[in-house]
Amino acid sequence: MVFDKKEECGLFGIYGASDAVQQTFFGLYSLQHRGQESAGIASSDGENIQCYTGMGSVGRVFRSGGSALEQLANPIAIGHVRYSTSGSSKPINSQPFITEYSQGQVAVAHNGNLINAPLLRAEYEAYGHIFKSTSDTEIISHLLAKPTHVSKSDPLAHVLNHLQGAYCLLFMFPDRIEAARDPYGIRPLCIGKTAEGHYCVASESCALDAIGAEFVREVEPGEIVTLNQDGVSSRFFVKPGTVKPAHCIFEHVYFSKQNSNIFGQNVHEFRKRLGRQLAKEHPVDADVVIAIPDSGSSSALGYAQGSGIPFDMGMVRSHYIGRTFISPDQKMRELQVRLKLAIIPEIVKDKRVVVVDDSIVRGTTTRSKMLALRQAGAKEIHMRASCAPIRFPCFYGVDFPTKEELIANNKTIEQIRDFIEVESLGYLSLDGMLGCVDRPKDNYCTACWSGEYPIPVDVRLNKFTMERHQMTLFDNTVTEL
Amino acid sequence: MVFDKKEECGLFGIYGASDAVQQTFFGLYSLQHRGQESAGIASSDGENIQCYTGMGSVGRVFRSGGSALEQLANPIAIGHVRYSTSGSSKPINSQPFITEYSQGQVAVAHNGNLINAPLLRAEYEAYGHIFKSTSDTEIISHLLAKPTHVSKSDPLAHVLNHLQGAYCLLFMFPDRIEAARDPYGIRPLCIGKTAEGHYCVASESCALDAIGAEFVREVEPGEIVTLNQDGVSSRFFVKPGTVKPAHCIFEHVYFSKQNSNIFGQNVHEFRKRLGRQLAKEHPVDADVVIAIPDSGSSSALGYAQGSGIPFDMGMVRSHYIGRTFISPDQKMRELQVRLKLAIIPEIVKDKRVVVVDDSIVRGTTTRSKMLALRQAGAKEIHMRASCAPIRFPCFYGVDFPTKEELIANNKTIEQIRDFIEVESLGYLSLDGMLGCVDRPKDNYCTACWSGEYPIPVDVRLNKFTMERHQMTLFDNTVTEL
Amino acid sequence: MVFDKKEECGLFGIYGASDAVQQTFFGLYSLQHRGQESAGIASSDGENIQCYTGMGSVGRVFRSGGSALEQLANPIAIGHVRYSTSGSSKPINSQPFITEYSQGQVAVAHNGNLINAPLLRAEYEAYGHIFKSTSDTEIISHLLAKPTHVSKSDPLAHVLNHLQGAYCLLFMFPDRIEAARDPYGIRPLCIGKTAEGHYCVASESCALDAIGAEFVREVEPGEIVTLNQDGVSSRFFVKPGTVKPAHCIFEHVYFSKQNSNIFGQNVHEFRKRLGRQLAKEHPVDADVVIAIPDSGSSSALGYAQGSGIPFDMGMVRSHYIGRTFISPDQKMRELQVRLKLAIIPEIVKDKRVVVVDDSIVRGTTTRSKMLALRQAGAKEIHMRASCAPIRFPCFYGVDFPTKEELIANNKTIEQIRDFIEVESLGYLSLDGMLGCVDRPKDNYCTACWSGEYPIPVDVRLNKFTMERHQMTLFDNTVTEL
Amino acid sequence: MVFDKKEECGLFGIYGASDAVQQTFFGLYSLQHRGQESAGIASSDGENIQCYTGMGSVGRVFRSGGSALEQLANPIAIGHVRYSTSGSSKPINSQPFITEYSQGQVAVAHNGNLINAPLLRAEYEAYGHIFKSTSDTEIISHLLAKPTHVSKSDPLAHVLNHLQGAYCLLFMFPDRIEAARDPYGIRPLCIGKTAEGHYCVASESCALDAIGAEFVREVEPGEIVTLNQDGVSSRFFVKPGTVKPAHCIFEHVYFSKQNSNIFGQNVHEFRKRLGRQLAKEHPVDADVVIAIPDSGSSSALGYAQGSGIPFDMGMVRSHYIGRTFISPDQKMRELQVRLKLAIIPEIVKDKRVVVVDDSIVRGTTTRSKMLALRQAGAKEIHMRASCAPIRFPCFYGVDFPTKEELIANNKTIEQIRDFIEVESLGYLSLDGMLGCVDRPKDNYCTACWSGEYPIPVDVRLNKFTMERHQMTLFDNTVTEL
Repeated sequence: MVFDKKEECGLFGIYGASDAVQQTFFGLYSLQHRGQESAGIASSDGENIQCYTGMGSVGRVFRSGGSALEQLANPIAIGHVRYSTSGSSKPINSQPFITEYSQGQVAVAHNGNLINAPLLRAEYEAYGHIFKSTSDTEIISHLLAKPTHVSKSDPLAHVLNHLQGAYCLLFMFPDRIEAARDPYGIRPLCIGKTAEGHYCVASESCALDAIGAEFVREVEPGEIVTLNQDGVSSRFFVKPGTVKPAHCIFEHVYFSKQNSNIFGQNVHEFRKRLGRQLAKEHPVDADVVIAIPDSGSSSALGYAQGSGIPFDMGMVRSHYIGRTFISPDQKMRELQVRLKLAIIPEIVKDKRVVVVDDSIVRGTTTRSKMLALRQAGAKEIHMRASCAPIRFPCFYGVDFPTKEELIANNKTIEQIRDFIEVESLGYLSLDGMLGCVDRPKDNYCTACWSGEYPIPVDVRLNKFTMERHQMTLFDNTVTEL
Repeated sequence: MVFDKKEECGLFGIYGASDAVQQTFFGLYSLQHRGQESAGIASSDGENIQCYTGMGSVGRVFRSGGSALEQLANPIAIGHVRYSTSGSSKPINSQPFITEYSQGQVAVAHNGNLINAPLLRAEYEAYGHIFKSTSDTEIISHLLAKPTHVSKSDPLAHVLNHLQGAYCLLFMFPDRIEAARDPYGIRPLCIGKTAEGHYCVASESCALDAIGAEFVREVEPGEIVTLNQDGVSSRFFVKPGTVKPAHCIFEHVYFSKQNSNIFGQNVHEFRKRLGRQLAKEHPVDADVVIAIPDSGSSSALGYAQGSGIPFDMGMVRSHYIGRTFISPDQKMRELQVRLKLAIIPEIVKDKRVVVVDDSIVRGTTTRSKMLALRQAGAKEIHMRASCAPIRFPCFYGVDFPTKEELIANNKTIEQIRDFIEVESLGYLSLDGMLGCVDRPKDNYCTACWSGEYPIPVDVRLNKFTMERHQMTLFDNTVTEL
Repeated sequence: MVFDKKEECGLFGIYGASDAVQQTFFGLYSLQHRGQESAGIASSDGENIQCYTGMGSVGRVFRSGGSALEQLANPIAIGHVRYSTSGSSKPINSQPFITEYSQGQVAVAHNGNLINAPLLRAEYEAYGHIFKSTSDTEIISHLLAKPTHVSKSDPLAHVLNHLQGAYCLLFMFPDRIEAARDPYGIRPLCIGKTAEGHYCVASESCALDAIGAEFVREVEPGEIVTLNQDGVSSRFFVKPGTVKPAHCIFEHVYFSKQNSNIFGQNVHEFRKRLGRQLAKEHPVDADVVIAIPDSGSSSALGYAQGSGIPFDMGMVRSHYIGRTFISPDQKMRELQVRLKLAIIPEIVKDKRVVVVDDSIVRGTTTRSKMLALRQAGAKEIHMRASCAPIRFPCFYGVDFPTKEELIANNKTIEQIRDFIEVESLGYLSLDGMLGCVDRPKDNYCTACWSGEYPIPVDVRLNKFTMERHQMTLFDNTVTEL
Repeated sequence: MVFDKKEECGLFGIYGASDAVQQTFFGLYSLQHRGQESAGIASSDGENIQCYTGMGSVGRVFRSGGSALEQLANPIAIGHVRYSTSGSSKPINSQPFITEYSQGQVAVAHNGNLINAPLLRAEYEAYGHIFKSTSDTEIISHLLAKPTHVSKSDPLAHVLNHLQGAYCLLFMFPDRIEAARDPYGIRPLCIGKTAEGHYCVASESCALDAIGAEFVREVEPGEIVTLNQDGVSSRFFVKPGTVKPAHCIFEHVYFSKQNSNIFGQNVHEFRKRLGRQLAKEHPVDADVVIAIPDSGSSSALGYAQGSGIPFDMGMVRSHYIGRTFISPDQKMRELQVRLKLAIIPEIVKDKRVVVVDDSIVRGTTTRSKMLALRQAGAKEIHMRASCAPIRFPCFYGVDFPTKEELIANNKTIEQIRDFIEVESLGYLSLDGMLGCVDRPKDNYCTACWSGEYPIPVDVRLNKFTMERHQMTLFDNTVTEL
């Protein structure tokens, strides 16, 4: 059993709206950047839960808001989008994950990564439980169903205390939605209220804007928020103040959408700050600042502001390119980079160009882009990354490659500069990054840069998980361009 | 939770053949008459199990033997076809049902109906188990995983002793196939051997013929047959001779294919016997004997032989009509009957016609056909059914309508004759039917005619099952004509 | 340019019914045996023509009577089904073929083969015309549009006089349907009247039965029948009596449906006559008469009647097997024969078996079936064909293989008997066949058996047609099992 | 017959490359902004032409470069993308348009609009020609086939002299590609050369960049460029210098891609000039300049440069929204605008915002966006359009709405300002626009702003075209989100 580590996903839920399913569809649409592998919506009429999931983007799964949405039409709904990986698709892992147990039905949608899932699974298997999926979400349903948990005064709070790792969770019981966030507040989750007065929850505030709902507040770390006929209510499964928050800065640097407000700050403004700080740390004499769109756009703008060097569009992103091409050979793969990011030669030709991107992970695509800039005539290229070198794996839900593949693990900055063939290379410092946050600096997780993991990770776990067999289930899902 | 009662399905499994998956595809094809709702194949390379299932016919799911079969290619394989119902499709109930538990992976394929499944499910839910499907097959995997069962010397035999009802089961563990049949031998299951020497199992012998395998023998009631690298071996989980067999005669009357040999008799020959007996019990002076194709073809031939009245083709079945039409109105529905069964007017015009079918269930389609014959000019119509009036529901896997919908429950023979508007109507007697079997008469189940159920059925069960909520899961499966 | 010779197709048209398109759908369904490669319906509201075509069966193209039928909903409609070939699919050749010319719109549907189409096409190309398809139907639209034709008092009659070969044609102009049949009456075409009083036309009477319409009469050779708001009217483009009819007997022997009435005789009754005559010409001492279903069923019944040897079902046809399999190798191909035609061993084992089929074309599948019978235990096999040996190609629309592939061209009867490995082989004589027709014997085409072609065929044509380039157009049509 | 006026399309062709079809696929991909309604590729092996077309985007039609591309694999290829309209899809109009005529096969791909197509079509219909499509491209094939044209020394040049309107055309004969541009040079077309030395042609230079080809030069107005085994050669069908060019500035303002170089200027740089001029003509005291992405991005950057007001990202475009939603009601439609263009509230809240877009056509979506900005807290909104008010229809290929729908036709600037509810509104003047071009000012078409049409348009034509019937052909194409 190989657990999927690629758990960066998006959540949306709404209670009581007559068009709750349609709103969830729109909410998921605006969260599409958090995952395009699969999408699903579960809805309830107050007594029975229905669920529809499929592989691919929200639009593909729900085909222009067609009959699936109509069949689901119910006033209570939660939805999920799942991160796309290059590997095999697994429809069985699509969420929401719906099951029936002694207390009735429950649908679960999860964003994050449970680091103790393999241990819990092994334990439950030893108790005679069976598993249908390879996702760490399934274990949560087993925990909920355990008789000693069921009999607690607050079974859900009890269960959440068994989970280790990063998680935002939406539970839909037939009569209510319960939204929970892990005690560290690693991933974002917020509450909104529509113009009609219905409450909703979403991974990012952009989903609230998408449906015209106002931002109420974040779900707090260690909090369970209930949406039911009485409106919204709250309780804590971990006493507030007992756990120091560890917000994932990488959400700010890369993952979240520019118009979202997470961890108390607008993402675009945060990234501009990163850019201004980057200009301070790594100044250079140049003619133009350009971004690798779209991930580097905000920080490039900040760099231009900070440095006084004019900002311009040197690269244009194609809106029609899907993410996964079937590339027969290297030549074709290079053609794809050209297709996806077209250079405007007039902007870079014979110029000293500052190029800003959010991060450099493996370094190979960065290298391709730098070569393309050179071919377009750039005289000097000064690459700037708006985060520190990524050297450590993330166990809390970001799908970084293995340590071996992280270029900053294997090469010095100078070696990386040499590899991507640029005149200069500058990474923002970790201190510089932390200088841009609004909350206390020690309220953020910096593990991928510093190696300091706020939740202890048992390294033996990986070995354990790899010893199990692989379970492959597939169906006739088409992957499209 | 409404349990699906529509469990008439087809099974096929083969061990060790290099083209095991392809053979399973062909085997399922020949069993397609046992179910077109869904189809699936699980295969193993000896260590890992893969599974592919989908909604619709075998050909549709596996698209002309295309890439899914190639991806599954492994020397151990089991497959399943599932009965199609007019209601909602439930992909989640497609089989084989694959799970992982403490002992590794297992895939289960099931034909029959477990009457104690609701009780077992309630019991396991009380122990904290969760359920993903609405099929009675899932409980079997839970039973297998129970620690006190796992620790038995023969866990599978132990588990089978917990099941009540009709079942033929194929279990695929990574290294072997285990085929089991309930102690009453209600549904058929047989063993074959291919020309290359590989052993296989199938619901009916027609699947053996389809792949050119020879018929070895039936799996005995209460027997487990193991197919592994040592060939085939056998053990009994119920001591032979302790349970009196209760073979389902309706398999002979309607369900099985004419070229199959089940319960020791060829189906076509059996039906001809029924027809000859029917001619003895309900003779009539007529010009021609015709069948409602294809279900009445064999018994009509028998009736013609027994009566001396010439057999002819008065109706032709269309090969291109799917089973489920979207019928906007009554007029269109009547057009469909015409499309599906075309009358050859020259054969029936101004004739006294004996029409033979296997059975009359609701009576409405029979009535439509009789009216069509009359419009085609038949002077007299003498309807003959080659089984006794069906008055009781089947709890062992045949999808009869409710007692209220069974016409023989609500009307006398004379009233039925009047309803279908024919000159005479004759049903074969139950004694007449039992006179056609080769094995002892008390080795057959006659519950749907006599109401005498060989396995006690707790009538409270239905009430219980209806009290649970309905769980609906669906995906973007297309149903086609 | 390689012309498609595979022009056996089915036609249906109806004027004035509120559900004309739905009726056409049902009519085409009942004519599905005449072609499954493509299907299409064109409809008119009296002023504008709409058209929808696609690859595959009627049910597949019109998906259970879904939205395409609704979009087409108009009171005037014609439809077409096209014969399926093993080769490449050409959507561009789907019919009805709709064009616009000086007189407005016209849709054409064609069953037959125009032997002068290549010459006409060459001529029109020389005049500057362009062609979009590789079908011989397109030239008809060009002929209709020619200014010197348009100016005639009856342009359609004038155009039909330019066509050589076999043709039944439906023309839909915005305000009417015109149905025409070639002067030889080679292919069948008949007129019907629905219960509501609307007139319709169809290739075979089975389509009239399918929609509950009564048979009015055949369209006569050389006749044009008009369906418009004034009901039905008739004119002749060739003076009746000037051309001797040449009905295709092969329509009776094989192509048409058993419940159809063509050329004044019911097909099933005709085939029974063939069987009785066959018993007279080739008697044999045997235990049972069986048919190769479904093509040999009627004649086998006749042979049994004629010979006194009992008829039984020795082979069962699968209803779930599509026509074209992707067969990786010879072994798989043999498995398919088994799947499609399952033998009932009890009927043939240790028996002297008479097997009746309609014809033997290449001989290879017949050989496979005979071997399967032998493996099932048949003691003696006596093969009987209900038509004479096919030795000559058909230029009038039946898709026989080339002369080289016709087994009767290359082998003596004795050599064929030896090749298919049977104890005896008997073909019905041509005289015997002609003894079964109701109309004068010289009113039938016997070219494929006798080589006497009623319409002269220029052998240079084939050479000419092969010298042109091949035009291949394809789209993303899925071929399914 | 209603002619499609929506003829803004993209062309790509390449001769001699072993992966010509793959390169054409990539070339079309980069031209996808010119049309997403349909896509097609025709290829030749030197003797035979194959063609594959379908509805939807290039990626959708050719499914990730799958089997269609493989089947087409030939060294000569041309491709076409077609503009998407909100109305009915017409597969029959997909291009390349392939036909066979007296001289063999030819495939035609067209970008532009032939204003004399209705007259030519009427003329050819009078000569007896038939038409299969409703596109103005088909008439070109008829002209090519005309015997008096065929016999000319240069038939193609002769035919082009009969065409009036805007056109870039690619002709593929089995052995060569011929690329032609109308004498006014209205639409762009350029020649490139790959690293391997193969010549190609494309609507915009971005397609050359996409495949790594270098820009050679534009195809000149009135020129025919031939790509064959001898490389590239040129001839003129209209003597150079006799016709004054009339380049479509709207290509620069809106249609072409920012990284393309057309009419001798880079599109992005041109738009920045427009923005700077706009700042000069319509200055305002404000806090931030934002763009309506992506159409207004370049000119907004220019406005910021010209005005000294800082540029920022106030709106983010979603990459996952397709163009056509099924919108049940007004509320849902407004939600879609939010989804497609998300506002970053932090940038606009309590700010005086300058919003720059390329143009205002109907005004309704502009109004929606302005309202959204206001809801996000903008204190003042100053809308700026980088082109003059569009008041006249385009007969040369741009799909503007009817005169009645063009807001600038019905309202004064002040009324428009009032309608879209902004503090100020400024349009760039026509003179200002012409001040940004590099070529002589009178070498551009300004008809949509000035009403001065360089090619005379017969206003009766519209009346004529509307009097013909509508021909609707459709097939089972899925429209997706």
